[in-house]
Amino acid sequence: MSNKVEDYILTIPDFPEKGIMFRDISTVLESPEGFHLAIEGYKSLLEGVEFDAIAGAESRGFMFGAPLAYVLGKPFLLIRKGGKLPRETEKVSYTLEYGSATIEMHKSSVKKGDRIVIVDDLMATGGTMKASCELIEKLGGKVAKIIELIELEGLKGRDALKGYDIGSVVKYPGK
Amino acid sequence: MSNKVEDYILTIPDFPEKGIMFRDISTVLESPEGFHLAIEGYKSLLEGVEFDAIAGAESRGFMFGAPLAYVLGKPFLLIRKGGKLPRETEKVSYTLEYGSATIEMHKSSVKKGDRIVIVDDLMATGGTMKASCELIEKLGGKVAKIIELIELEGLKGRDALKGYDIGSVVKYPGK
Repeated sequence: MSNKVEDYILTIPDFPEKGIMFRDISTVLESPEGFHLAIEGYKSLLEGVEFDAIAGAESRGFMFGAPLAYVLGKPFLLIRKGGKLPRETEKVSYTLEYGSATIEMHKSSVKKGDRIVIVDDLMATGGTMKASCELIEKLGGKVAKIIELIELEGLKGRDALKGYDIGSVVKYPGK
Repeated sequence: MSNKVEDYILTIPDFPEKGIMFRDISTVLESPEGFHLAIEGYKSLLEGVEFDAIAGAESRGFMFGAPLAYVLGKPFLLIRKGGKLPRETEKVSYTLEYGSATIEMHKSSVKKGDRIVIVDDLMATGGTMKASCELIEKLGGKVAKIIELIELEGLKGRDALKGYDIGSVVKYPGK
């Protein structure tokens, strides 16, 4: 048993395509020790941060965002793919490598001035995270901090997210 | 503040189409009290149940499944839509109202004889849940229990899931 969360992350070469080193966090969730270390890692990134709620984007942002919000006793706000939320929403569309995507939140989820932490498992190019920040700001909220379990430094997500406070538990230098 | 989880569930008429009463659980997650009541409700369904792991299907099964596994100190197993898991998987395809869907799990997630609880937020016709049970059984596991926050009794999900132990926290008689 290891006390370092990175020892629970698997690296799979050439998935989903050749040249990509896929960081597989399913093995973190499958280990109660790994899962605990991940949540403790996120919590340590929030020391001294004042915030009102935690948001996570479908679907990987739910895996760690929901338990983190639960243990901290904070509201968990859903950022969902388009068309799934039943009440009045705000939307942001953004470009992906192939095509585009839309994310949305209920307007009722964010009150003006709410300080919101956004949780995701892995920061690559930062595209979905940037759209999530825009969405929260469109709703009148402020992004208190972005927290990630894994940061792929070679993909320069921080450049796409300039001006935001970003923390990551584990950093890999490559892509 | 209410101590009944159903008071945190919103009912939205005519979403996603006319005649459907959509049960919106986003407001449960947004309330620390509601979220706590939901997790306590799931826990009470597991009293006396012996099991090795908790599984949840993308993406709504992650919202409650991950925090429940976390607080119980059990492995959380991902049931994902096709093409997203990087290692060797087992798959099940099933029919939806329009078209079909595939779900998969890593073969490494389930060992022969593992007793697995499957968590979801809402049981409607039971289609995705039935496929999830088949997937776990294909991998050599046993479904210890199916637990749902909400059961729409009018959609007869229990008929599709005959032979399985099913528990739900909140039941609505209609569809």
